Amino acid sequence: MAAAIDFYFDFSSPYGYFAAQKIEALAARHGREVHWHPILLGVVFKATGMAPLPLVPLKGEYAFHDFERSARFHGIEYRRPAVFPMATQAAARAMLWIAGRHGAARAVEFAQAVYRAYFVEGIDIGEPAALAHIVTALGGDGAALPEAINDAAIKERLKAEVEAAMERKVFGSPFIIVDGEPFWGFDRFDQLEAFLRDGRV
Amino acid sequence: MAAAIDFYFDFSSPYGYFAAQKIEALAARHGREVHWHPILLGVVFKATGMAPLPLVPLKGEYAFHDFERSARFHGIEYRRPAVFPMATQAAARAMLWIAGRHGAARAVEFAQAVYRAYFVEGIDIGEPAALAHIVTALGGDGAALPEAINDAAIKERLKAEVEAAMERKVFGSPFIIVDGEPFWGFDRFDQLEAFLRDGRV
Repeated sequence: MAAAIDFYFDFSSPYGYFAAQKIEALAARHGREVHWHPILLGVVFKATGMAPLPLVPLKGEYAFHDFERSARFHGIEYRRPAVFPMATQAAARAMLWIAGRHGAARAVEFAQAVYRAYFVEGIDIGEPAALAHIVTALGGDGAALPEAINDAAIKERLKAEVEAAMERKVFGSPFIIVDGEPFWGFDRFDQLEAFLRDGRV
Repeated sequence: MAAAIDFYFDFSSPYGYFAAQKIEALAARHGREVHWHPILLGVVFKATGMAPLPLVPLKGEYAFHDFERSARFHGIEYRRPAVFPMATQAAARAMLWIAGRHGAARAVEFAQAVYRAYFVEGIDIGEPAALAHIVTALGGDGAALPEAINDAAIKERLKAEVEAAMERKVFGSPFIIVDGEPFWGFDRFDQLEAFLRDGRV
Protein backbone atom coordinates (compact mmCIF):
# COMPACT_ATOMS: atom_id res chain seq x y z
CA MET A 1 0.00 0.00 0.00
CA ALA A 2 1.34 3.40 -0.98
CA ALA A 3 1.79 5.92 1.84
CA ALA A 4 -1.06 8.27 2.72
CA ILE A 5 -1.26 11.87 1.59
CA ASP A 6 -0.91 14.33 4.48
CA PHE A 7 -3.34 17.20 3.95
CA TYR A 8 -2.85 20.28 6.17
CA PHE A 9 -5.51 22.97 6.18
CA ASP A 10 -7.00 25.81 8.20
CA PHE A 11 -10.79 26.01 8.44
CA SER A 12 -10.61 29.72 7.55
CA SER A 13 -8.66 29.15 4.31
CA PRO A 14 -10.68 29.38 1.07
CA TYR A 15 -7.99 27.53 -0.87
CA GLY A 16 -8.00 24.91 1.89
CA TYR A 17 -11.76 24.58 1.35
CA PHE A 18 -11.26 24.21 -2.41
CA ALA A 19 -8.59 21.56 -1.78
CA ALA A 20 -10.94 19.72 0.58
CA GLN A 21 -13.49 19.43 -2.26
CA LYS A 22 -10.98 17.70 -4.55
CA ILE A 23 -8.37 15.88 -2.46
CA GLU A 24 -10.25 12.64 -1.79
CA ALA A 25 -11.09 11.99 -5.45
CA LEU A 26 -7.58 12.90 -6.49
CA ALA A 27 -6.09 10.53 -3.91
CA ALA A 28 -8.51 7.74 -4.84
CA ARG A 29 -7.51 7.99 -8.53
CA HIS A 30 -3.99 7.04 -7.47
CA GLY A 31 -4.76 4.50 -4.74
CA ARG A 32 -3.87 6.78 -1.84
CA GLU A 33 -5.55 7.58 1.44
CA VAL A 34 -5.70 11.09 2.86
CA HIS A 35 -4.81 12.03 6.42
CA TRP A 36 -6.51 15.31 7.29
CA HIS A 37 -4.65 17.66 9.63
CA PRO A 38 -6.37 20.83 10.83
CA ILE A 39 -3.80 23.53 11.63
CA LEU A 40 -3.92 27.14 12.80
CA LEU A 41 -2.55 29.57 10.23
CA GLY A 42 -2.48 32.29 12.88
CA VAL A 43 0.24 30.39 14.73
CA VAL A 44 2.12 29.64 11.52
CA PHE A 45 1.92 33.26 10.35
CA LYS A 46 3.54 34.38 13.61
CA ALA A 47 6.55 32.23 12.73
CA THR A 48 6.75 33.39 9.11
CA GLY A 49 5.83 37.04 9.64
CA MET A 50 3.05 36.63 7.07
CA ALA A 51 -0.48 37.99 7.29
CA PRO A 52 -3.76 36.65 5.91
CA LEU A 53 -3.92 37.60 2.21
CA PRO A 54 -6.93 39.93 2.42
CA LEU A 55 -5.21 42.01 5.12
CA VAL A 56 -2.19 42.81 2.93
CA PRO A 57 -2.37 46.25 1.22
CA LEU A 58 -3.19 46.03 -2.54
CA LYS A 59 -3.52 42.25 -2.30
CA GLY A 60 -6.66 42.34 -0.20
CA GLU A 61 -9.24 43.23 -2.80
CA TYR A 62 -7.64 40.94 -5.36
CA ALA A 63 -7.68 38.04 -2.89
CA PHE A 64 -11.46 38.15 -2.47
CA HIS A 65 -11.89 38.39 -6.23
CA ASP A 66 -9.59 35.43 -6.73
CA PHE A 67 -11.48 33.30 -4.18
CA GLU A 68 -14.72 33.80 -6.09
CA ARG A 69 -13.21 33.43 -9.55
CA SER A 70 -11.22 30.31 -8.60
CA ALA A 71 -14.35 28.73 -7.12
CA ARG A 72 -16.26 29.33 -10.38
CA PHE A 73 -13.34 28.09 -12.48
CA HIS A 74 -13.16 24.83 -10.51
CA GLY A 75 -16.92 24.37 -10.22
CA ILE A 76 -17.00 24.77 -6.44
CA GLU A 77 -19.85 26.39 -4.53
CA TYR A 78 -18.60 29.44 -2.62
CA ARG A 79 -20.07 32.49 -0.93
CA ARG A 80 -17.86 35.14 0.58
CA PRO A 81 -18.17 34.87 4.38
CA ALA A 82 -19.24 38.01 6.23
CA VAL A 83 -16.41 37.55 8.74
CA PHE A 84 -12.96 36.76 7.34
CA PRO A 85 -10.56 35.52 8.46
CA MET A 86 -12.20 33.51 11.22
CA ALA A 87 -10.80 32.07 14.45
CA THR A 88 -10.57 28.33 13.91
CA GLN A 89 -9.25 26.91 17.18
CA ALA A 90 -12.69 25.66 18.16
CA ALA A 91 -13.30 23.89 14.83
CA ALA A 92 -9.82 22.37 14.80
CA ARG A 93 -10.13 21.12 18.38
CA ALA A 94 -13.59 19.75 17.63
CA MET A 95 -12.22 17.79 14.69
CA LEU A 96 -9.50 16.24 16.86
CA TRP A 97 -12.09 15.39 19.51
CA ILE A 98 -14.31 13.64 16.94
CA ALA A 99 -11.35 11.80 15.45
CA GLY A 100 -10.46 10.48 18.92
CA ARG A 101 -14.02 9.49 19.72
CA HIS A 102 -15.39 8.25 16.39
CA GLY A 103 -12.39 7.80 14.11
CA ALA A 104 -10.87 9.63 11.17
CA ALA A 105 -13.71 9.06 8.69
CA ARG A 106 -16.27 10.80 10.92
CA ALA A 107 -13.78 13.60 11.58
CA VAL A 108 -13.42 14.19 7.82
CA GLU A 109 -17.22 14.29 7.45
CA PHE A 110 -17.24 16.92 10.18
CA ALA A 111 -14.46 18.92 8.48
CA GLN A 112 -16.35 18.91 5.18
CA ALA A 113 -19.49 20.08 6.96
CA VAL A 114 -17.62 22.87 8.76
CA TYR A 115 -16.08 24.10 5.50
CA ARG A 116 -19.48 24.08 3.85
CA ALA A 117 -21.06 25.88 6.79
CA TYR A 118 -18.47 28.64 6.59
CA PHE A 119 -17.89 29.03 2.84
CA VAL A 120 -21.37 28.25 1.52
CA GLU A 121 -23.88 28.82 4.29
CA GLY A 122 -22.23 31.82 5.94
CA ILE A 123 -22.27 30.28 9.41
CA ASP A 124 -19.96 31.64 12.12
CA ILE A 125 -17.82 28.55 12.71
CA GLY A 126 -15.93 30.33 15.49
CA GLU A 127 -18.99 29.69 17.70
CA PRO A 128 -18.95 26.38 19.63
CA ALA A 129 -22.77 26.35 19.42
CA ALA A 130 -22.59 26.32 15.61
CA LEU A 131 -20.06 23.48 15.71
CA ALA A 132 -22.25 21.56 18.17
CA HIS A 133 -25.17 21.94 15.75
CA ILE A 134 -23.05 20.48 12.94
CA VAL A 135 -22.05 17.51 15.09
CA THR A 136 -25.67 16.85 16.03
CA ALA A 137 -26.76 17.06 12.37
CA LEU A 138 -24.16 14.39 11.58
CA GLY A 139 -25.62 12.14 14.28
CA GLY A 140 -22.98 12.84 16.93
CA ASP A 141 -23.08 14.09 20.49
CA GLY A 142 -23.20 17.83 19.77
CA ALA A 143 -24.22 18.68 23.31
CA ALA A 144 -20.85 17.40 24.56
CA LEU A 145 -18.82 19.57 22.19
CA PRO A 146 -18.56 22.92 24.01
CA GLU A 147 -17.05 21.27 27.07
CA ALA A 148 -14.97 18.80 25.07
CA ILE A 149 -13.12 21.48 23.12
CA ASN A 150 -12.17 23.27 26.34
CA ASP A 151 -10.53 20.17 27.70
CA ALA A 152 -6.84 20.76 28.42
CA ALA A 153 -5.83 17.53 26.68
CA ILE A 154 -7.57 18.53 23.44
CA LYS A 155 -5.99 22.00 23.53
CA GLU A 156 -2.58 20.40 24.07
CA ARG A 157 -3.23 17.94 21.27
CA LEU A 158 -3.96 20.72 18.76
CA LYS A 159 -0.90 22.64 19.88
CA ALA A 160 1.21 19.53 19.31
CA GLU A 161 -0.36 18.98 15.87
CA VAL A 162 0.44 22.53 14.79
CA GLU A 163 4.00 22.23 16.09
CA ALA A 164 4.45 18.92 14.30
CA ALA A 165 3.21 20.54 11.08
CA MET A 166 5.66 23.39 11.43
CA GLU A 167 8.47 20.94 12.07
CA ARG A 168 7.59 19.48 8.68
CA LYS A 169 7.86 23.04 7.29
CA VAL A 170 4.16 23.47 6.65
CA PHE A 171 3.61 27.23 6.28
CA GLY A 172 0.27 27.66 4.51
CA SER A 173 -3.09 26.15 3.66
CA PRO A 174 -3.64 23.89 1.86
CA PHE A 175 -0.33 22.15 2.28
CA ILE A 176 0.19 18.59 1.07
CA ILE A 177 3.07 16.24 1.83
CA VAL A 178 3.25 12.88 0.10
CA ASP A 179 6.30 10.59 -0.05
CA GLY A 180 8.28 13.50 1.40
CA GLU A 181 7.30 15.86 -1.44
CA PRO A 182 5.65 19.17 -0.35
CA PHE A 183 2.97 21.01 -2.31
CA TRP A 184 1.68 24.39 -1.16
CA GLY A 185 -1.57 25.70 -2.55
CA PHE A 186 -4.62 24.42 -4.36
CA ASP A 187 -2.97 25.74 -7.54
CA ARG A 188 -0.33 23.01 -7.23
CA PHE A 189 -2.88 20.20 -7.52
CA ASP A 190 -1.88 19.80 -11.17
CA GLN A 191 1.69 19.08 -10.09
CA LEU A 192 0.48 16.92 -7.19
CA GLU A 193 -1.51 14.80 -9.62
CA ALA A 194 1.50 14.44 -11.93
CA PHE A 195 3.59 13.38 -8.93
CA LEU A 196 1.06 10.77 -7.84
CA ARG A 197 0.78 9.45 -11.40
CA ASP A 198 4.46 9.40 -12.35
CA GLY A 199 6.25 9.31 -8.99
CA ARG A 200 7.99 12.53 -9.97
CA VAL A 201 7.31 15.96 -11.48
CA MET B 1 -9.19 44.65 -32.47
CA ALA B 2 -9.40 43.33 -28.92
CA ALA B 3 -7.46 45.27 -26.29
CA ALA B 4 -3.89 44.29 -25.51
CA ILE B 5 -2.87 42.21 -22.52
CA ASP B 6 -0.82 44.17 -19.98
CA PHE B 7 1.95 41.97 -18.64
CA TYR B 8 3.79 43.24 -15.54
CA PHE B 9 6.94 41.47 -14.42
CA ASP B 10 10.16 41.87 -12.47
CA PHE B 11 13.36 40.56 -14.06
CA SER B 12 14.24 38.83 -10.78
CA SER B 13 10.95 36.89 -10.61
CA PRO B 14 11.12 33.20 -11.60
CA TYR B 15 7.35 33.05 -12.11
CA GLY B 16 7.65 36.20 -14.22
CA TYR B 17 10.25 34.38 -16.30
CA PHE B 18 7.94 31.37 -16.68
CA ALA B 19 5.10 33.69 -17.72
CA ALA B 20 7.36 35.38 -20.25
CA GLN B 21 7.94 31.99 -21.91
CA LYS B 22 4.21 31.42 -22.44
CA ILE B 23 2.42 34.77 -22.64
CA GLU B 24 2.99 35.56 -26.34
CA ALA B 25 1.69 32.20 -27.59
CA LEU B 26 -1.26 32.38 -25.19
CA ALA B 27 -2.13 35.88 -26.41
CA ALA B 28 -1.72 34.92 -30.06
CA ARG B 29 -4.14 31.99 -29.65
CA HIS B 30 -6.80 34.55 -28.75
CA GLY B 31 -5.88 37.37 -31.15
CA ARG B 32 -4.35 39.61 -28.50
CA GLU B 33 -1.17 41.62 -28.33
CA VAL B 34 0.96 41.81 -25.20
CA HIS B 35 2.30 45.02 -23.67
CA TRP B 36 5.32 44.21 -21.54
CA HIS B 37 5.85 46.34 -18.41
CA PRO B 38 9.00 45.84 -16.35
CA ILE B 39 8.37 46.77 -12.72
CA LEU B 40 10.41 46.75 -9.51
CA LEU B 41 9.05 44.33 -6.93
CA GLY B 42 11.29 45.92 -4.30
CA VAL B 43 9.26 49.12 -4.55
CA VAL B 44 5.96 47.23 -4.57
CA PHE B 45 6.96 45.11 -1.56
CA LYS B 46 7.65 48.28 0.42
CA ALA B 47 4.02 49.30 -0.12
CA THR B 48 2.59 45.88 0.71
CA GLY B 49 4.98 44.95 3.54
CA MET B 50 5.81 41.73 1.68
CA ALA B 51 9.24 40.19 1.23
CA PRO B 52 10.69 38.08 -1.58
CA LEU B 53 9.45 34.50 -1.10
CA PRO B 54 12.82 32.88 -0.47
CA LEU B 55 13.53 35.31 2.38
CA VAL B 56 10.40 34.33 4.33
CA PRO B 57 11.06 31.81 7.15
CA LEU B 58 9.88 28.26 6.30
CA LYS B 59 8.79 29.38 2.82
CA GLY B 60 12.31 30.00 1.58
CA GLU B 61 13.48 26.48 0.96
CA TYR B 62 10.12 25.48 -0.50
CA ALA B 63 10.19 28.45 -2.88
CA PHE B 64 13.44 27.33 -4.53
CA HIS B 65 12.11 23.79 -4.77
CA ASP B 66 8.90 25.07 -6.35
CA PHE B 67 10.78 27.18 -8.92
CA GLU B 68 12.64 24.10 -10.15
CA ARG B 69 9.67 21.76 -10.03
CA SER B 70 7.34 24.23 -11.77
CA ALA B 71 9.93 24.77 -14.51
CA ARG B 72 10.13 21.00 -15.12
CA PHE B 73 6.34 20.62 -15.01
CA HIS B 74 5.87 23.33 -17.64
CA GLY B 75 8.84 22.28 -19.79
CA ILE B 76 10.82 25.45 -19.19
CA GLU B 77 14.61 25.58 -18.97
CA TYR B 78 15.69 26.88 -15.56
CA ARG B 79 18.83 26.94 -13.44
CA ARG B 80 18.79 28.36 -9.95
CA PRO B 81 20.71 31.67 -10.06
CA ALA B 82 23.65 32.00 -7.66
CA VAL B 83 22.41 35.43 -6.55
CA PHE B 84 18.72 35.77 -5.70
CA PRO B 85 16.84 38.02 -5.58
CA MET B 86 18.69 40.37 -7.91
CA ALA B 87 18.54 44.17 -8.29
CA THR B 88 16.67 44.81 -11.52
CA GLN B 89 16.60 48.60 -11.89
CA ALA B 90 19.33 48.49 -14.54
CA ALA B 91 17.56 45.83 -16.63
CA ALA B 92 14.19 47.57 -16.34
CA ARG B 93 15.64 50.94 -17.32
CA ALA B 94 17.51 49.34 -20.21
CA MET B 95 14.28 47.82 -21.49
CA LEU B 96 12.55 51.21 -21.43
CA TRP B 97 15.52 52.79 -23.19
CA ILE B 98 15.41 50.17 -25.96
CA ALA B 99 11.64 50.53 -26.32
CA GLY B 100 12.07 54.28 -26.79
CA ARG B 101 14.88 53.89 -29.26
CA HIS B 102 13.93 50.78 -31.25
CA GLY B 103 10.31 50.05 -30.40
CA ALA B 104 8.42 47.54 -28.28
CA ALA B 105 9.28 44.43 -30.30
CA ARG B 106 13.03 44.91 -29.81
CA ALA B 107 12.45 45.66 -26.14
CA VAL B 108 10.62 42.34 -25.72
CA GLU B 109 13.50 40.52 -27.45
CA PHE B 110 15.81 42.16 -24.94
CA ALA B 111 13.57 41.19 -22.03
CA GLN B 112 13.53 37.56 -23.16
CA ALA B 113 17.32 37.59 -23.49
CA VAL B 114 17.73 39.11 -20.02
CA TYR B 115 15.45 36.49 -18.45
CA ARG B 116 17.37 33.73 -20.19
CA ALA B 117 20.70 35.21 -19.13
CA TYR B 118 19.61 35.25 -15.50
CA PHE B 119 17.54 32.08 -15.17
CA VAL B 120 19.36 29.78 -17.59
CA GLU B 121 22.89 31.09 -18.07
CA GLY B 122 23.50 32.34 -14.52
CA ILE B 123 24.59 35.81 -15.64
CA ASP B 124 24.56 38.70 -13.15
CA ILE B 125 21.95 40.90 -14.82
CA GLY B 126 22.43 43.58 -12.16
CA GLU B 127 25.65 44.52 -13.98
CA PRO B 128 25.27 47.15 -16.75
CA ALA B 129 28.17 45.53 -18.58
CA ALA B 130 26.23 42.25 -18.82
CA LEU B 131 23.17 44.09 -20.12
CA ALA B 132 25.35 45.96 -22.65
CA HIS B 133 26.66 42.61 -23.86
CA ILE B 134 23.10 41.35 -24.36
CA VAL B 135 22.16 44.46 -26.34
CA THR B 136 25.21 44.08 -28.55
CA ALA B 137 24.46 40.40 -29.16
CA LEU B 138 20.99 41.44 -30.34
CA GLY B 139 22.56 43.89 -32.82
CA GLY B 140 21.97 47.03 -30.75
CA ASP B 141 24.21 49.77 -29.42
CA GLY B 142 25.39 48.04 -26.27
CA ALA B 143 28.21 50.53 -25.73
CA ALA B 144 25.63 53.29 -25.16
CA LEU B 145 23.74 51.36 -22.48
CA PRO B 146 25.69 52.12 -19.27
CA GLU B 147 25.29 55.86 -19.79
CA ALA B 148 21.74 55.61 -21.12
CA ILE B 149 20.40 53.85 -18.04
CA ASN B 150 21.84 56.54 -15.79
CA ASP B 151 19.98 59.25 -17.66
CA ALA B 152 17.62 61.14 -15.34
CA ALA B 153 14.75 60.91 -17.83
CA ILE B 154 14.99 57.10 -18.00
CA LYS B 155 15.11 56.83 -14.21
CA GLU B 156 12.06 59.06 -13.97
CA ARG B 157 10.31 57.03 -16.65
CA LEU B 158 10.77 53.76 -14.73
CA LYS B 159 9.60 55.38 -11.52
CA ALA B 160 6.46 56.58 -13.31
CA GLU B 161 5.87 53.10 -14.79
CA VAL B 162 6.10 51.46 -11.36
CA GLU B 163 3.78 54.06 -9.86
CA ALA B 164 1.29 53.59 -12.70
CA ALA B 165 1.38 49.82 -12.11
CA MET B 166 0.70 50.27 -8.39
CA GLU B 167 -2.19 52.62 -9.19
CA ARG B 168 -3.63 49.69 -11.15
CA LYS B 169 -3.11 47.59 -7.98
CA VAL B 170 -0.32 45.48 -9.39
CA PHE B 171 1.39 43.88 -6.38
CA GLY B 172 3.36 40.93 -7.70
CA SER B 173 5.06 39.29 -10.67
CA PRO B 174 3.79 38.15 -13.06
CA PHE B 175 0.67 40.27 -12.99
CA ILE B 176 -1.68 40.41 -15.98
CA ILE B 177 -4.50 42.84 -16.63
CA VAL B 178 -6.77 42.35 -19.64
CA ASP B 179 -10.13 44.02 -20.21
CA GLY B 180 -9.90 45.25 -16.60
CA GLU B 181 -9.54 41.72 -15.21
CA PRO B 182 -6.47 41.11 -13.00
CA PHE B 183 -4.55 37.83 -12.77
CA TRP B 184 -1.68 37.40 -10.33
CA GLY B 185 0.77 34.57 -10.83
CA PHE B 186 1.84 32.15 -13.51
CA ASP B 187 -0.46 29.63 -11.82
CA ARG B 188 -3.47 31.67 -12.95
CA PHE B 189 -2.65 31.23 -16.65
CA ASP B 190 -5.32 28.52 -16.81
CA GLN B 191 -7.93 31.04 -15.67
CA LEU B 192 -6.43 33.73 -17.92
CA GLU B 193 -6.81 31.42 -20.91
CA ALA B 194 -10.43 30.66 -19.98
CA PHE B 195 -11.08 34.38 -19.71
CA LEU B 196 -9.57 35.11 -23.13
CA ARG B 197 -11.53 32.24 -24.67
CA ASP B 198 -14.92 32.84 -23.04
CA GLY B 199 -14.80 36.50 -22.03
CA ARG B 200 -15.37 35.41 -18.44
CA VAL B 201 -14.25 32.85 -15.87
